[in-house]
Amino acid sequence: MVQVTDGQKKLTKPTSPADITDNMDLDEFAAALSGCAFGAGRISQAADIFTEMIADKNIVKFFGLAGAMVPAGMRKIIADLIRDGHINVLVTTGANMVHDALEGLYMPHYKGDAQSNDVALHEEGIDRIYDVFLPDKHFEEFEGFMQETIAKLPERPIKISEFMAHLGKHIENSDSILRAAYDMGVPIYCPAFPDSVIGLQAWLYKETNPLVIDAIGDMHDFMDICWNAEKAGAFFVGGGVPKNFIFQSMLVTPRDFDYAIQLTMDTPQTGGLSGATLEEAISWGKVGHKSKLVTVYSDATITMPLIVGAARARLRKQNQNKNQNRNQNQNKSQKTK
Amino acid sequence: MVQVTDGQKKLTKPTSPADITDNMDLDEFAAALSGCAFGAGRISQAADIFTEMIADKNIVKFFGLAGAMVPAGMRKIIADLIRDGHINVLVTTGANMVHDALEGLYMPHYKGDAQSNDVALHEEGIDRIYDVFLPDKHFEEFEGFMQETIAKLPERPIKISEFMAHLGKHIENSDSILRAAYDMGVPIYCPAFPDSVIGLQAWLYKETNPLVIDAIGDMHDFMDICWNAEKAGAFFVGGGVPKNFIFQSMLVTPRDFDYAIQLTMDTPQTGGLSGATLEEAISWGKVGHKSKLVTVYSDATITMPLIVGAARARLRKQNQNKNQNRNQNQNKSQKTK
Amino acid sequence: MVQVTDGQKKLTKPTSPADITDNMDLDEFAAALSGCAFGAGRISQAADIFTEMIADKNIVKFFGLAGAMVPAGMRKIIADLIRDGHINVLVTTGANMVHDALEGLYMPHYKGDAQSNDVALHEEGIDRIYDVFLPDKHFEEFEGFMQETIAKLPERPIKISEFMAHLGKHIENSDSILRAAYDMGVPIYCPAFPDSVIGLQAWLYKETNPLVIDAIGDMHDFMDICWNAEKAGAFFVGGGVPKNFIFQSMLVTPRDFDYAIQLTMDTPQTGGLSGATLEEAISWGKVGHKSKLVTVYSDATITMPLIVGAARARLRKQNQNKNQNRNQNQNKSQKTK
Amino acid sequence: MVQVTDGQKKLTKPTSPADITDNMDLDEFAAALSGCAFGAGRISQAADIFTEMIADKNIVKFFGLAGAMVPAGMRKIIADLIRDGHINVLVTTGANMVHDALEGLYMPHYKGDAQSNDVALHEEGIDRIYDVFLPDKHFEEFEGFMQETIAKLPERPIKISEFMAHLGKHIENSDSILRAAYDMGVPIYCPAFPDSVIGLQAWLYKETNPLVIDAIGDMHDFMDICWNAEKAGAFFVGGGVPKNFIFQSMLVTPRDFDYAIQLTMDTPQTGGLSGATLEEAISWGKVGHKSKLVTVYSDATITMPLIVGAARARLRKQNQNKNQNRNQNQNKSQKTK
Repeated sequence: MVQVTDGQKKLTKPTSPADITDNMDLDEFAAALSGCAFGAGRISQAADIFTEMIADKNIVKFFGLAGAMVPAGMRKIIADLIRDGHINVLVTTGANMVHDALEGLYMPHYKGDAQSNDVALHEEGIDRIYDVFLPDKHFEEFEGFMQETIAKLPERPIKISEFMAHLGKHIENSDSILRAAYDMGVPIYCPAFPDSVIGLQAWLYKETNPLVIDAIGDMHDFMDICWNAEKAGAFFVGGGVPKNFIFQSMLVTPRDFDYAIQLTMDTPQTGGLSGATLEEAISWGKVGHKSKLVTVYSDATITMPLIVGAARARLRKQNQNKNQNRNQNQNKSQKTK
Repeated sequence: MVQVTDGQKKLTKPTSPADITDNMDLDEFAAALSGCAFGAGRISQAADIFTEMIADKNIVKFFGLAGAMVPAGMRKIIADLIRDGHINVLVTTGANMVHDALEGLYMPHYKGDAQSNDVALHEEGIDRIYDVFLPDKHFEEFEGFMQETIAKLPERPIKISEFMAHLGKHIENSDSILRAAYDMGVPIYCPAFPDSVIGLQAWLYKETNPLVIDAIGDMHDFMDICWNAEKAGAFFVGGGVPKNFIFQSMLVTPRDFDYAIQLTMDTPQTGGLSGATLEEAISWGKVGHKSKLVTVYSDATITMPLIVGAARARLRKQNQNKNQNRNQNQNKSQKTK
Repeated sequence: MVQVTDGQKKLTKPTSPADITDNMDLDEFAAALSGCAFGAGRISQAADIFTEMIADKNIVKFFGLAGAMVPAGMRKIIADLIRDGHINVLVTTGANMVHDALEGLYMPHYKGDAQSNDVALHEEGIDRIYDVFLPDKHFEEFEGFMQETIAKLPERPIKISEFMAHLGKHIENSDSILRAAYDMGVPIYCPAFPDSVIGLQAWLYKETNPLVIDAIGDMHDFMDICWNAEKAGAFFVGGGVPKNFIFQSMLVTPRDFDYAIQLTMDTPQTGGLSGATLEEAISWGKVGHKSKLVTVYSDATITMPLIVGAARARLRKQNQNKNQNRNQNQNKSQKTK
Repeated sequence: MVQVTDGQKKLTKPTSPADITDNMDLDEFAAALSGCAFGAGRISQAADIFTEMIADKNIVKFFGLAGAMVPAGMRKIIADLIRDGHINVLVTTGANMVHDALEGLYMPHYKGDAQSNDVALHEEGIDRIYDVFLPDKHFEEFEGFMQETIAKLPERPIKISEFMAHLGKHIENSDSILRAAYDMGVPIYCPAFPDSVIGLQAWLYKETNPLVIDAIGDMHDFMDICWNAEKAGAFFVGGGVPKNFIFQSMLVTPRDFDYAIQLTMDTPQTGGLSGATLEEAISWGKVGHKSKLVTVYSDATITMPLIVGAARARLRKQNQNKNQNRNQNQNKSQKTK
């Protein structure tokens, strides 16, 4: 009898080079990378995991959105995921919501240049976010909207997620994250509320009016969602506060995340949470040792659209197959009748 | 007459190779890098700027502390800067304050291994932060301390900085950042309060007791400090919420930061604020075009101690020189009498 | 008359959020990112530039391939580009050619695990390349092939590109980069020849046989290609020796690269060439100030397949349109006859 | 009897916060970080390992120098290590030797600006290396030197290390790496010889004169050094060709490196060798499982001077102690006589 050594057991799945053709869709593209390694293999895994997540209605889907994703042009992707039920809880930064509100109020960002002269830009009233420009006067207009909108809040301690829903209600644009979340009843948590122009506007209002934002007021609801989730999945774009807040909440429940996808350019080696591996999260009990986990170390403005597109294409095909099978079965059963 | 072209004007300062000897102090080390380029040149600049900042009592010194700096072993450096008057306002993350409190309550972190088996660690009740281990039961003990301490707060909306000072008051250890800040009257701002075990403990308390943490309650005081600063300097360790919060506050005042030092491993190319250049901040008016700015793209657990040590060594020498001059002048004036 | 300020001129192109649908091909995907910023915008630009490059037969196409791209599963993409005439000159590392030869000789890489115990792997005779495994005995078998193949070389100083063509001739597998280049007459330059198992095998042969590899023997031919190029484009996967060798060669000619695409995870801030901006290359005269340039700071195992796939899809559509127009014109001309 | 669990065994070394004072030398600084984690802990380890390496005359010391270290101002540090016997074999890039030769011929680099207008620089004849400027005409002058120097080589295949020694012989400046290596008989290996202005100058010469550079001619000598080393240590600044060449050579011997220090900003996650962990090298047998290894993920223009300075300071103190002991012993023995 031939004995199989441990080493041989580790050599069972040959890699296979990607075959990239001129007529693939995103599902086929992700599948073509499934035999690859490094980032390519991880993209393929992420598409698999995300498809599994969005195909299952019983999974509560948390989405952590850090980084300057809205100025980068990612807000419609998020809004669409919310509208299609693929995000049930959103945790994000104030800045992303500020820029979402600006665009939702038809104050656009502009294509700029990362090599600009910032002194000149300052004189011209242009704020720069890497290669994005934003006229400073947008913020003046935004102040009007915000002061008016805050004034409509009830006079009692306001939960942060309540504040965000209130903003969403006053934005008409359907591609807005705030509006989509308001329409779908998806709560938006923003634990670093004071840290953004939204926070500044709240402070400004409070200078002359009574206003209390209850920093921990919505944590009870958040914990309830965690406790009651039959299954749970998390999609992290960047790390920061959203990643930690989602993970720490699950920590106080008796369960953990069954699925987690992390897109980041931070590396584990500096020790910060943003770049920490999802394996590290196992030690804390944030995810289980049987959870499906993948981290893609690459620019999320590229990988998020790619993973979302691949998973959407697959879901469509799965649904088509189901419908065809159903139709065939119906036809069969009609024939046998 | 020989004409000097624009090009020649750009070629006036030859680089000079670093000369590293076996008996340098940190001041001499930083000076030895002053003729170098890339990170070496920037460390030298940062030491110059920080020395200038701490030597001038009229500069209000803001310190933004992100990343897992306390688990990395950086808390005494921060506490000492506070005690010596070199930090006047601290903005940080909840996590850093949690870990500072743990160590301040004599629950240490342990040297671990970044290549650990996280499933085994989880079974052994050990939480991992890259190459640092922390027994999970520390958090149980911490819960006792927190619930007791929160119960001593007055029954009215509590400002976040007030909460932090209250914690500091109940920690005895003099190397604790929270304690040092309490002792010195240095406010600690923590805009992402809910996002940390401190936030979780506050939530837990609130489940059975009345508690409101006013998210924007301390912004008025913060703005006052910004408005009243004659000169202002900022030292950013990592980016995240602390960087943005410090910068956005200065934005609403008619002034900007005269000095800024940023230590980060994030890069500008992904567009996030954590890696954004300080030049980008000029476009927003967060810093002025004449401000002294430097970003060091390198591990802050190495560069922060280095810059702090070099600046401290220089300050000591400057003060010695002043004292010598004063003594000589006194001697002279005595002789002439 | 309304005056347009400089600032207003900078605010003419609003960003537009990406719309990701469930039935896009790679061309549509790249186009959907064209209104985005950061990496997303750059991917879109890279797809535009690469399409322009491969559509134009008059452009001499240089390809610099660094990093462990072959173990990652990228060799068929490269081989296909060579076979389709989209790479005219390849500059790469010895390691990529070693791993290409291994796979070309049917000795596969295997899917592994980046978190492996390397001591155990060593005992089991498995070499690890991040999350790829390779049985060490492959190299024994490779030695047989190499010693036999080197023995067939003529007894005179051998140019490196000649050596690579000789290897390609002895590999049958059509997905091999070495074979594809041999078949198509595309020269492979490998300036760091000694630095790889190919170099080691040459050394081993030389221990008992006469062999001289002429390190600079093929530079004359390379320069000729540069001098004679009517237009030139460069695609850099990673930096390293391939990037510098391609750029330095163009430097000694009176012309520069009209197109350049760079995919890298290195950052400019550390000063090395691998992460240096393509703008920096303008100062040297490697690329012109009117050249079309883009750098994508993201994992090349993801971005290279994406850009190649998008450009291929576009080229197919362009060719279809041309054919349709030609057919319509022919139909018209036939009708009018 | 109390049972100690596996978990408890992992919690034996508490971290201890760094205490940074105003009068430390580099040895004390590195020691102050020994109780820290992340990069700080690794710097401390690297200082320990390098001290052990340079204190032991029986260790053959390999040094891999990649990146633009000479333009950054690091050449004197390297030259001094060579002169003091702390580097026995240098493997580097052509570019580093080009820039070393330029400075050795008194053609300096200049402090520049990373935010420059590269089109303007090009018109002014200035080449940019991140924040370093170099007048293009230096290269014209260098051409004269090189053509003259190459002409003095014997007419037979020239080994690369022979070429480098020949260059060193014709440079007078004692801070030059090439000169120091020539003076000390330390061989310089440059496996990517064609890839640099030195390679270009050799090509230019060869256009009109006979010249063969034997790419693999010096590998025999290199292997001999590896085979004959009783103990071996490697210090890698950056990855690239030098790291791989040093490691692959040890691979063909029956031994491995006992010590290895790696300073890099590349990360393991992209799969390239430059960022690969030293643990990965264990699987290949490049280093042993008992070897002393450390990787510092941080800017090497900061960490190399720091580690070198700390190790030098310690060595001086160790030698002082030895001398004191010897003197005391001599005194004792004299007294007893």
